[in-house]
Amino acid sequence: MSTQIPDFYAIIPAGGAGTRLWPLSRQSAPKFLLDLTGTGRSLLQGTWDRLTDLATEQYLVTGGAHAAGVARQLPQLPAENLLVEPLPRDSAAAIGLAAAIIAHRHPGAIVGSFAADQVIANQQVFDQVVRQAAVVARTGALVTIGIDPTHPATGFGYIKAGADLGLAEAPDAVQVVEFVEKPAAELATEYLRTGQYRWNAGMFVAQADTILQLLAQYQPALAADLATLAKAWDTPERAEQLAQLWPGITKIAIDYAIAEPAAAAGRVAMVAGNFGWNDIGDFAALTEVLPPSDGLTQFGASPVISIDSTGFVAAMSGRTITVLGLEDVVVVDTPDALLITHKAAAQQVKKVVDALGPAGLEHLR
Amino acid sequence: MSTQIPDFYAIIPAGGAGTRLWPLSRQSAPKFLLDLTGTGRSLLQGTWDRLTDLATEQYLVTGGAHAAGVARQLPQLPAENLLVEPLPRDSAAAIGLAAAIIAHRHPGAIVGSFAADQVIANQQVFDQVVRQAAVVARTGALVTIGIDPTHPATGFGYIKAGADLGLAEAPDAVQVVEFVEKPAAELATEYLRTGQYRWNAGMFVAQADTILQLLAQYQPALAADLATLAKAWDTPERAEQLAQLWPGITKIAIDYAIAEPAAAAGRVAMVAGNFGWNDIGDFAALTEVLPPSDGLTQFGASPVISIDSTGFVAAMSGRTITVLGLEDVVVVDTPDALLITHKAAAQQVKKVVDALGPAGLEHLR
Repeated sequence: MSTQIPDFYAIIPAGGAGTRLWPLSRQSAPKFLLDLTGTGRSLLQGTWDRLTDLATEQYLVTGGAHAAGVARQLPQLPAENLLVEPLPRDSAAAIGLAAAIIAHRHPGAIVGSFAADQVIANQQVFDQVVRQAAVVARTGALVTIGIDPTHPATGFGYIKAGADLGLAEAPDAVQVVEFVEKPAAELATEYLRTGQYRWNAGMFVAQADTILQLLAQYQPALAADLATLAKAWDTPERAEQLAQLWPGITKIAIDYAIAEPAAAAGRVAMVAGNFGWNDIGDFAALTEVLPPSDGLTQFGASPVISIDSTGFVAAMSGRTITVLGLEDVVVVDTPDALLITHKAAAQQVKKVVDALGPAGLEHLR
Repeated sequence: MSTQIPDFYAIIPAGGAGTRLWPLSRQSAPKFLLDLTGTGRSLLQGTWDRLTDLATEQYLVTGGAHAAGVARQLPQLPAENLLVEPLPRDSAAAIGLAAAIIAHRHPGAIVGSFAADQVIANQQVFDQVVRQAAVVARTGALVTIGIDPTHPATGFGYIKAGADLGLAEAPDAVQVVEFVEKPAAELATEYLRTGQYRWNAGMFVAQADTILQLLAQYQPALAADLATLAKAWDTPERAEQLAQLWPGITKIAIDYAIAEPAAAAGRVAMVAGNFGWNDIGDFAALTEVLPPSDGLTQFGASPVISIDSTGFVAAMSGRTITVLGLEDVVVVDTPDALLITHKAAAQQVKKVVDALGPAGLEHLR
């Protein structure tokens, strides 16, 4: 049993359709609402479960289209902790809004932001990492959790580690030198060679006040809007203020908004997270979190016959799927749409989704 | 307009499920009942149409399971010309029965046997070839039509041509030296190099009496049974004789039964058929008879989105099919079964069908 981190509040931004997992994920059934690991719990529920022992309370930030889905999947979530964005305005506004409301309701709170659609294999290590991050956060730093890279991925941003912070209760905490953009393959390989770089999984731990101070410093207009909204949130003014301010609120990722400039100013720390992380970013990644197979890795319960084949099959339509003589094939069979591709093309599934509209198939998005 | 060949009767054996076209073809919906060319006519109907101007009458030989399907697709077929086999007993019994009944009903008949599941591109050339074959058949020869090979196929038997027959009305007729079995790839290449070999498509033209004489000579037991059945056919004795004789009738292909020994005895002739023949033996062959495409060759009307892909897709389920980044893929999407394979594995689809029973999916065969 782990014990709660004092004054620790989890923020779970639940957004993003997971386009590269189409047609498993849809606009109406985004990735975070799906049980992609065969555990009987959605990615969102898995994220909730992972934080439930650590956090005093959890907050969800999502769009209006998914508020009902989130509420149904998380009956334990207090209604007042479900923050519904009228329009998507990127992660600085989403996380900033939650931080501002939490700071208003619970002065002195530490917040940790964890995306709703990631998988973590080792809960125990995760707990230790978050505890260390909270220790560092109390020093006033913005703390990120850097994922130990397992391959020279070109789909993630990287975080460059600096000197150890020398904190007794956070022995793995280091200074962050800089955040770097998604690299080309050659540069990614170089990053791995140095041993100094970790993947940026968008996990941040900080005092709510630290986040608000950084926003005030680097994104003053955004910070002012969030302060107004947080003040109005638990009053009858909320709807009017949201309607008035949210459409024009600054749309920027939290990395650009505060993490990068704060790192340049020496205010960002990192705790390395070697806990088996997977963002299930595409079907190749999904295959990694499913039970291994000599042939086709199967997701879903429809009958599958695989002969001389390897790859991934999502068997969701009830129909029998047969695969003969194909290597690294990806088959996703749903009642109204079928995708067939190769693992090497898994990152390009967005091309298919983008082609739906022009083909008059917008309803399948 | 072509005119009828005097006393010419067509025999269409309609058998074979077309296993390599599963799940498009099924035991209950065999290849010959399917419209595989997008013409609005099944292969059986196409075969009927092709012979309708040439033949005085046409005869169909099929199994009990497909009698209704054949009758519905061919309303012009006289009921007495639909010969229903109680059990499948291979081509010598099927064609021999039809020849015996035709000989009994129409003394002096010439018969031509043409499988129900083949496609011919050039009707005019086909007509000329059959006319020449009928001319040669009147000399007492068993006449086969040899298909000009387009590639060193290993899936067909070959016919070795000998000397020209020197017939004025059948200038393309030659002696047949021998029939040879399906060759290995190297031997097939050698066959093509010599220019002497043609594919055996199982098309025979002969006097009905010639076939019966050859059967009497080489397969006397079979010939005797067929004679008894033909005599009883148009009498109240038919059912009893069929029940008594058919189960034990000799089960042998007509090539082995009479064509090979007759060729050895110098009694077989060949007319070369350069009329664009395709037996639609697998999905690679099916692709060849469909309109060409830069990307995926499509069969069926469901929506298909193809990106950076080539191959074949049968879109029969109503669902949207999307294919990304695959070369020479074969996708066959039906309401209850899906096959995904590679053109190079098209000949091995039987492996999949064979796996259905052990997987408890016999109903999909």
